[in-house]
Amino acid sequence: MSTLSATEPAETAERIRLAAAYLSRVAEPACLPVWRFVRRHGYLDAADAIRRGDAPADVRGATEARRKSADPELDLDAAERLGIRLVTPVDCDWPRFAVVALENAAQRLPAGGRSSERKRPDPIPPLALWVRGHASLASIGLRSLSVVGARSATSYGTHVASELCFGLAERGVTVVSGGAFGIDAAAHRGALAAEGSTVLVSAAGLDRPYPSANKALFDAVAETGLLVSELPPGSAPHRQRFLSRNRLIAAFGTATVLVEAAFRSGALNTAGYCRDLERPLLAVPGPVTSALSVGCHREMQRDEGAARVVTSVADLMPWVGTFDAGRPDEPDLFDGIRDALRPLERAVLEGVPSYGAVTPDELSRLSNQPLSVVVSAIPALVSVELVTVIDGLIGLGPRNEGRIPPPSTGVAI
Amino acid sequence: MSTLSATEPAETAERIRLAAAYLSRVAEPACLPVWRFVRRHGYLDAADAIRRGDAPADVRGATEARRKSADPELDLDAAERLGIRLVTPVDCDWPRFAVVALENAAQRLPAGGRSSERKRPDPIPPLALWVRGHASLASIGLRSLSVVGARSATSYGTHVASELCFGLAERGVTVVSGGAFGIDAAAHRGALAAEGSTVLVSAAGLDRPYPSANKALFDAVAETGLLVSELPPGSAPHRQRFLSRNRLIAAFGTATVLVEAAFRSGALNTAGYCRDLERPLLAVPGPVTSALSVGCHREMQRDEGAARVVTSVADLMPWVGTFDAGRPDEPDLFDGIRDALRPLERAVLEGVPSYGAVTPDELSRLSNQPLSVVVSAIPALVSVELVTVIDGLIGLGPRNEGRIPPPSTGVAI
Repeated sequence: MSTLSATEPAETAERIRLAAAYLSRVAEPACLPVWRFVRRHGYLDAADAIRRGDAPADVRGATEARRKSADPELDLDAAERLGIRLVTPVDCDWPRFAVVALENAAQRLPAGGRSSERKRPDPIPPLALWVRGHASLASIGLRSLSVVGARSATSYGTHVASELCFGLAERGVTVVSGGAFGIDAAAHRGALAAEGSTVLVSAAGLDRPYPSANKALFDAVAETGLLVSELPPGSAPHRQRFLSRNRLIAAFGTATVLVEAAFRSGALNTAGYCRDLERPLLAVPGPVTSALSVGCHREMQRDEGAARVVTSVADLMPWVGTFDAGRPDEPDLFDGIRDALRPLERAVLEGVPSYGAVTPDELSRLSNQPLSVVVSAIPALVSVELVTVIDGLIGLGPRNEGRIPPPSTGVAI
Repeated sequence: MSTLSATEPAETAERIRLAAAYLSRVAEPACLPVWRFVRRHGYLDAADAIRRGDAPADVRGATEARRKSADPELDLDAAERLGIRLVTPVDCDWPRFAVVALENAAQRLPAGGRSSERKRPDPIPPLALWVRGHASLASIGLRSLSVVGARSATSYGTHVASELCFGLAERGVTVVSGGAFGIDAAAHRGALAAEGSTVLVSAAGLDRPYPSANKALFDAVAETGLLVSELPPGSAPHRQRFLSRNRLIAAFGTATVLVEAAFRSGALNTAGYCRDLERPLLAVPGPVTSALSVGCHREMQRDEGAARVVTSVADLMPWVGTFDAGRPDEPDLFDGIRDALRPLERAVLEGVPSYGAVTPDELSRLSNQPLSVVVSAIPALVSVELVTVIDGLIGLGPRNEGRIPPPSTGVAI
């Protein structure tokens, strides 16, 4: 990424926003060559090179069609009029604790990406996200579950999805889904009914609710939650965009719940991304006589990466991203969250004593960081439960429990 | 066990039958002290000692109430009039390939048995089995599945049980269950509808069908399959006898299928015996809104010994006791079946070459056993698929596949 100028941060941030808007217009989501090119050269230089037609062949091939016509200022203006903003990795609101799972998965990919025989696009981080709504995007991936399933759901499926999501929202868990008919809509509606937070990840531009019959649902979600899309306003939903959209849904939940899915179902594509991202997949059982539960049962029967059977909100809560010491063998978010910390946050965290709590001044000395750095790092560390602040004193948070040995004070604890 | 006299085998077998009938009358099923006493001293001496009141205190305590009044000749006569026969371990028809799982489990028990806090009686082999019907008892535990579930089943549960058991019976699999209302009855009826084999293990004497409303079902099962009980004719069903009966159901299937079970259900007791016996437990999912599927889902959610999700006859077939090379990590019956072989059978098996096939004469030389021993051992070895006979030549059977390395002939295979 380009080095930010310390003297003109606001101007640089604005240039990055323009570059990100440009990239989101010229390249389709989950494009491995473009993502690697941006990663190597930064948003500014990558966007410039693409605009000039001065990029490697694979990047040029992926961007040629729109590289000249794309007008990011026009897109950003249009978005603003629609109440849509663009969030990039340099923004505080960037959902870095969700995206880190895609970054890790992308780095595990072979040089040329996966075989094109695979039905799902590669698990690549988004370059930028178009967002509508006032809820926090940054907290996505910390206390959120994705809930997906068939569009042609049964009344059993929509009932269960809606009940589960009502219960999750009641408990402060953000429900992520895709805004489709059937399970998706029931999931959003369940969360809305509990006046909870829900995030709808769209496969089209946010001014084009799809399916259009769900427009009222999109508006209701934007009211209290968030609409999110990788695609700039005006973009139409294509099959490939639905598939690549599903990787965001898998990344945005600390786990994904499959409520109903037929033998062949788009929801199983999201399940595949859970395996790519090493995120837990949970599935709701149903009657074996129902074709809409075949996909759920098959995911439970896998020899490797099998879906866990969940039947109630209580079954879901251990997967909601709060580190659960009772499941030491399960993949947890701890490592992913460490990966997503910024260097200064990590430096501050290392100064927090393993026992007891300290004042910000003391933490400044212990971490050898200026007080301003300590103060600005604390909110992120608290949000991921790595530190706790009680009465102004800073100590390790619940996510560190059992990770750091108690001090050998010679005193029996 | 007492040494059989080679000169009077018939007379000794008859004395053992009388002793077994006596023991089955004086002791409740699954009585650890009595089983250990019989194992140490043999049926004849153990029965004599108990009758004389000359046994250790724990054995006396378990047999005192009926040791004087028990009359095995009367019981055997009454049984014969009812078409009921007594099968003991010295009979060819003894289901040794099923009982060996209980023997192995019993030998793992601590000296005093399990804590009496445990709700299920110890997994102890039966001393003898009262049987009505003409099907083969010996083949139980080789190609049989147990199917259990709630008495207060839903129409969904009885429909699924009956369909699965119809399909199993069509494929030559014996369906084992307990003759109760609900899932049990549906399982037996499904197998009967396919004109297949089904075994009903009763918790009362076989002249006392329980529940009595299922008398016609008991009679239909006896017609083509088998009724089995540890208890002599006239015995009433008690709660404890239901619990101990369930260990036989778990042992008689190469796996057990749980179709419906409420949060507290007798069928979960059978599931517990599957874990005791290291036999696979399979469970049918159902609507999460149904109280009758809660037990099934909970068994699937266990951290250890979790039930496998099964939804169709095809899902069940890999668990039907034919060694499946595709599941190398799963517990299989191979070791249990080896344990249940008689020494001479084992000696003959060791003579079978690892490649190709031989005549009985050649096998006699290779195994260093008389031809008469070879000929008498072959049926049991064939029935458990350890050897195959084709055109009079004897070779290793499918259950040995992959167990024995191919010969190093220097020829590419």
